Amino acid sequence: MKIEEVSGGICAVKGVRAYGIKEGSKGLALIEGGGKATGVFTLNKLKAAPLLFTKRQLENGRISAVIANSGCANSFTGEQGMKNAEKMAELVASALGVIKEEVAVLSTGPIGAQLNMALIEQQLGEVAEGLTSDDTGSTEAAKAIMTTDTFHKEHAVSIDAGNAERVVIGGIAKGSGMIFPDMATMLSFIYTDAALSEEALRKCLKDAVDNSFNMIVVDGDMSTNDMVLLVATGRSVTVTEADFKAGLNQVCKALAKQIARDGEGATKLIEVRVKGAVADAKNIAREILRSPLVKSAIFGEHIDLMCGRIIATIGSSAAYVNSKGMSISVRNENADAILAVKKGEFMDLSDSARNIMKGKELFIDVDMAAGEEIEVTAWGCDLSYDYVRINAGK
Amino acid sequence: MKIEEVSGGICAVKGVRAYGIKEGSKGLALIEGGGKATGVFTLNKLKAAPLLFTKRQLENGRISAVIANSGCANSFTGEQGMKNAEKMAELVASALGVIKEEVAVLSTGPIGAQLNMALIEQQLGEVAEGLTSDDTGSTEAAKAIMTTDTFHKEHAVSIDAGNAERVVIGGIAKGSGMIFPDMATMLSFIYTDAALSEEALRKCLKDAVDNSFNMIVVDGDMSTNDMVLLVATGRSVTVTEADFKAGLNQVCKALAKQIARDGEGATKLIEVRVKGAVADAKNIAREILRSPLVKSAIFGEHIDLMCGRIIATIGSSAAYVNSKGMSISVRNENADAILAVKKGEFMDLSDSARNIMKGKELFIDVDMAAGEEIEVTAWGCDLSYDYVRINAGK
Repeated sequence: MKIEEVSGGICAVKGVRAYGIKEGSKGLALIEGGGKATGVFTLNKLKAAPLLFTKRQLENGRISAVIANSGCANSFTGEQGMKNAEKMAELVASALGVIKEEVAVLSTGPIGAQLNMALIEQQLGEVAEGLTSDDTGSTEAAKAIMTTDTFHKEHAVSIDAGNAERVVIGGIAKGSGMIFPDMATMLSFIYTDAALSEEALRKCLKDAVDNSFNMIVVDGDMSTNDMVLLVATGRSVTVTEADFKAGLNQVCKALAKQIARDGEGATKLIEVRVKGAVADAKNIAREILRSPLVKSAIFGEHIDLMCGRIIATIGSSAAYVNSKGMSISVRNENADAILAVKKGEFMDLSDSARNIMKGKELFIDVDMAAGEEIEVTAWGCDLSYDYVRINAGK
Repeated sequence: MKIEEVSGGICAVKGVRAYGIKEGSKGLALIEGGGKATGVFTLNKLKAAPLLFTKRQLENGRISAVIANSGCANSFTGEQGMKNAEKMAELVASALGVIKEEVAVLSTGPIGAQLNMALIEQQLGEVAEGLTSDDTGSTEAAKAIMTTDTFHKEHAVSIDAGNAERVVIGGIAKGSGMIFPDMATMLSFIYTDAALSEEALRKCLKDAVDNSFNMIVVDGDMSTNDMVLLVATGRSVTVTEADFKAGLNQVCKALAKQIARDGEGATKLIEVRVKGAVADAKNIAREILRSPLVKSAIFGEHIDLMCGRIIATIGSSAAYVNSKGMSISVRNENADAILAVKKGEFMDLSDSARNIMKGKELFIDVDMAAGEEIEVTAWGCDLSYDYVRINAGK
């Protein structure tokens, strides 16, 4: 079995057409392509209207189209918000000739305001007109759902399992701030032509999300609007669940890393691996990436401050800590790893070791030296002036 | 019973002498004054050497002197760190003629480096020389333990319970970053001449800390070095536990608010009150003040963004949420409160309401409209460019 990256995002999948437009902060994306569908939703108790609506839609297990707007989250908007989400589905149903019960509706943007339905109706006409199965369709849809994102996010793979026909999995995503499990202010739409049972799709998506979108941290804030949607058109040859899962993991990880790299104000992508924990390895990795002190030390490129603060973060977690065994090593995209903390002791770091912090991608390995828990990986970014500027609306 | 603010910090208490000096980032404070002592310590599992040492010292229930240095936390420093903490106690014992077992040792600053013992020994000579019961002694000690603090912190009260002699409680504190329960990168030394049992002192301190130092949030990071120490010289008339508790609460709250106001890079002091919760009111208040998104919206003076993000924070907490009953009102030090969210609906805010955000002190009242839990109050600050600059070491 071989997994290869391919171009085209969601439009790499046969039968999927997409398009999107953006006017100022208000964008609208439309995706056409029917099949078995399953989703993973934010755990925030104050779920936005479109999420509540789409969760209900998914009870049928089938989606024919997705509409998603940016610039307004339609969150904390009461009865009117629910009516507007439903109205969006109706508009899509009549524009595309699909049934209303099979339209997923998503919104992303600031919380509290009502949607401008006149604008959405007008934009929908134009977007429906533009639907295409070309690569550009996926790209325009991905661009339309951007908010504070600085680049659009898409990824697709084809799985070569030795059959005549290859299975394709393609996704787009948005997300930049308010990023923390479970889940971030993010949306992701993933399509595949794999023929799998609904049960298998659900299991594979849950697993892939747990190890990708649920392992990225920008600021520790949990949004009211997050969801990942997987639609399987079932037009392709059958694929084993294991092969599909490997491909889906790859797509989700690639999209999650793109979100972390594009974290609001980020100047560096950070990968934290934690091994040797008794339990809680995931929490340790995520709390390290949540700490404003760790993140600003990385922005300032200070390896000593960073390691000291990583240790304080680990100590404040619920995890069992072996203070005399714990090690931390650091490398960047160009340089070999150096041991910064060796079995509980800070190493005297040379200038060349300090230079590691100048990399654009930092890899931080924490060995808890306490147990046998499986190694986990999480992704995040540093905390810069621009994070503050963006979120202060300056 | 009347509680009055008095000047003098810890030196307002009879029998207490103090002094401190600072050279660059390296400061040393010394406090002389013996009595029953009790302390509250960080819950971080990686406690610094001086904390482990002082915790052991307190088992005797008596402290005669306190030595505290800034510029190095003596944290994650292994055997050598423990030896150095003990050596500091020895130096004080011989300088002041007290017994080593009654010297408390504290350190604050970056994690990982060993203390410069030669410098500490040299500074101690000068500081012991300067010990004074004048107000300046308290002030110089408070200044010596500052790290990223921009002002020194002290507060004292006298309790008039109708007796011939008044009871005095005076404290100093430091703290600015890595501030989160339980507890912050903070130190506080509180002295009193009240004659109370060790048991009463312990109970009163725990209660006062829970409602003051444990209710301030700067960044959500928990330090390895925090402690609050209460020493009762017992030289005064007896006071009821209730009266003493009221006075101690006032001192701890005043010092805690000074720490929040001096949060790294802070431009505003924020007070969050949560009422009407089923449970978890404390966590709700603290998570609101921990959110980088809420904090940067306040820095940017955007009331809508702030309220939307407060709602997302509440929704992501473990608390029961009544989305149709919840209200949020906001006021500043000059203006009346305005309702920003009324029973689950965002209000249309006028320009004058928006001007509230320009205040230097913001008071945010959250009514969860869900239960009868007692009202809680927490303090914090906004997230500005300067927080990043300070912690990036730029």
